[in-house]
Amino acid sequence: MRNGNGAGGAIPRRNETAFLKELAELTRLVEDRLKGLLAVRDVPEHRIYESMAYSVAAGGKRIRPVLFLAVGDMLGGKIDEMLPYACAMELIHTYSLIHDDLPAMDNDDFRRGLPTNHRAYGEAMAILAGDALLNRAFELMLETAMKQGADDAGKLSRGIRAAHCMAEASGVSGMIGGQVMDMEAEGRNLDMHLLDRMHRLKTGALIRACAVSPAILCGADDATVEALAGYAENLGLAFQIRDDLLDVESTDEVLGKPVGSDERNGKSTFVTLLGLEGARLALASAGADALDALGPFGEKAAFLAELAEFIATRRH
Amino acid sequence: MRNGNGAGGAIPRRNETAFLKELAELTRLVEDRLKGLLAVRDVPEHRIYESMAYSVAAGGKRIRPVLFLAVGDMLGGKIDEMLPYACAMELIHTYSLIHDDLPAMDNDDFRRGLPTNHRAYGEAMAILAGDALLNRAFELMLETAMKQGADDAGKLSRGIRAAHCMAEASGVSGMIGGQVMDMEAEGRNLDMHLLDRMHRLKTGALIRACAVSPAILCGADDATVEALAGYAENLGLAFQIRDDLLDVESTDEVLGKPVGSDERNGKSTFVTLLGLEGARLALASAGADALDALGPFGEKAAFLAELAEFIATRRH
Repeated sequence: MRNGNGAGGAIPRRNETAFLKELAELTRLVEDRLKGLLAVRDVPEHRIYESMAYSVAAGGKRIRPVLFLAVGDMLGGKIDEMLPYACAMELIHTYSLIHDDLPAMDNDDFRRGLPTNHRAYGEAMAILAGDALLNRAFELMLETAMKQGADDAGKLSRGIRAAHCMAEASGVSGMIGGQVMDMEAEGRNLDMHLLDRMHRLKTGALIRACAVSPAILCGADDATVEALAGYAENLGLAFQIRDDLLDVESTDEVLGKPVGSDERNGKSTFVTLLGLEGARLALASAGADALDALGPFGEKAAFLAELAEFIATRRH
Repeated sequence: MRNGNGAGGAIPRRNETAFLKELAELTRLVEDRLKGLLAVRDVPEHRIYESMAYSVAAGGKRIRPVLFLAVGDMLGGKIDEMLPYACAMELIHTYSLIHDDLPAMDNDDFRRGLPTNHRAYGEAMAILAGDALLNRAFELMLETAMKQGADDAGKLSRGIRAAHCMAEASGVSGMIGGQVMDMEAEGRNLDMHLLDRMHRLKTGALIRACAVSPAILCGADDATVEALAGYAENLGLAFQIRDDLLDVESTDEVLGKPVGSDERNGKSTFVTLLGLEGARLALASAGADALDALGPFGEKAAFLAELAEFIATRRH
């Protein structure tokens, strides 16, 4: 973690309503496109389409695709051209949740108040729905790159590099590697180094790709890509620390799920390793670092700055 | 099924040794490259790498990547440029077997005489290893397209179209859709139409892509692509009918797994629907159609013709 030097403070913040309005607009775009992508087909195997659509529709905050669109928008990209890639990231995120919830993994019966995929469609279908969503994400990215790059070799090349960045982030050197670390950490104490690595892979890699990939699509220079990577890494870290804090500080009602589960499960978290006060300081530091990284973009980064604050202070 | 008109008979066949030698050479290329792709890394989550490598190393006949390379070779493509794409298909095939074997799916303890992935590494790791292999296949295709197409927009475009063809074949409108049909058919009788659709999706789509994708990479014209698609569709059909026949005609020893399992499991097969004689006729017809489709390629198609005969007459 770098130390905040306050440069991010230079980005003028708007009132909360302006942020929430923009957030809602971007979320709506994502929701609408996702719905279009997951139409159920009238074929004998229609239940796999229903199972895929079920978990995507049950979705959460759409933080990843919103981040993707916001970065692309800031860099002058066309929202409509970013949207399929952004949605691909949400499909990847959703598949990972379906497989995470399986009996052999976390064995969760409910997610966001609804039965998990395997509770609704059976375990075999849930495995296949997860597989299908991952596969669909790559189909979508490839077909988008082909379409947008049909008469523009540069655009085709940027589309493929962006897709490759996302593929690395979701694979064994990213999200899946982190899942394995998390799984193997069960009942064992992680030190700070391993905890950091686990989160960097498990949730950090995908969030980072949601900032780096749109920059690649927009043809951004290396310094811009690096600044956005720094922002997203700290955003991911803040997201995770906040998660750990909420498990201690919140209530079942506000959080929408039982608090205190980390302690009950003997999990290593930022709170167990740093203490409550230490975790709060680490959160503030990650938040400040995220804002610092946005310095070069000035007021154009207002939404991204507000998004970082939104995530660092979220109540569920 | 089209009727064989004997055009394929025009392709001169070599002696069996020449075919087996070429088959062994192509298989060796695939094996070597697969090994290189799946090196275990010295990281905390190293077991996922071991689990992935385990199932790929346990592999079978490598029919899919061999078909891929043979088609590319026939069309004048460079084997070395085809190889990563061919291996990606084997990774996709392997992931599908790992997930197929899971307790929630077929619940198989052994495959090719070795413990299945979940028996060796646990169910959670097997789910993640499957996910990781699918993801790795796309990483590999994307990085290959980027590398080979770095200074050649046409090659980049062909690489992406080939990858997209494979993505469609492995997804919900291909292999996964077929898996779902197979799963839902359990304990029910399928008619010929549904049985045909199931196999066309479950195994046919990937085999077809192994003939169409190299043609795309080589910049083949539409007629060539169509001829190869016809060849591969009949090859896939022959493969499946032979599979159904072996379950009735073979012995445990020769087949390497218990025969008669289809009947015990009440499965609809080409044998249950067409009878032994009918299935044999259908196999001969599919084999002849596969050869017919190769007509336009003349003696250059000798290996592909021999491969079709090899598959239609295989004993395990």
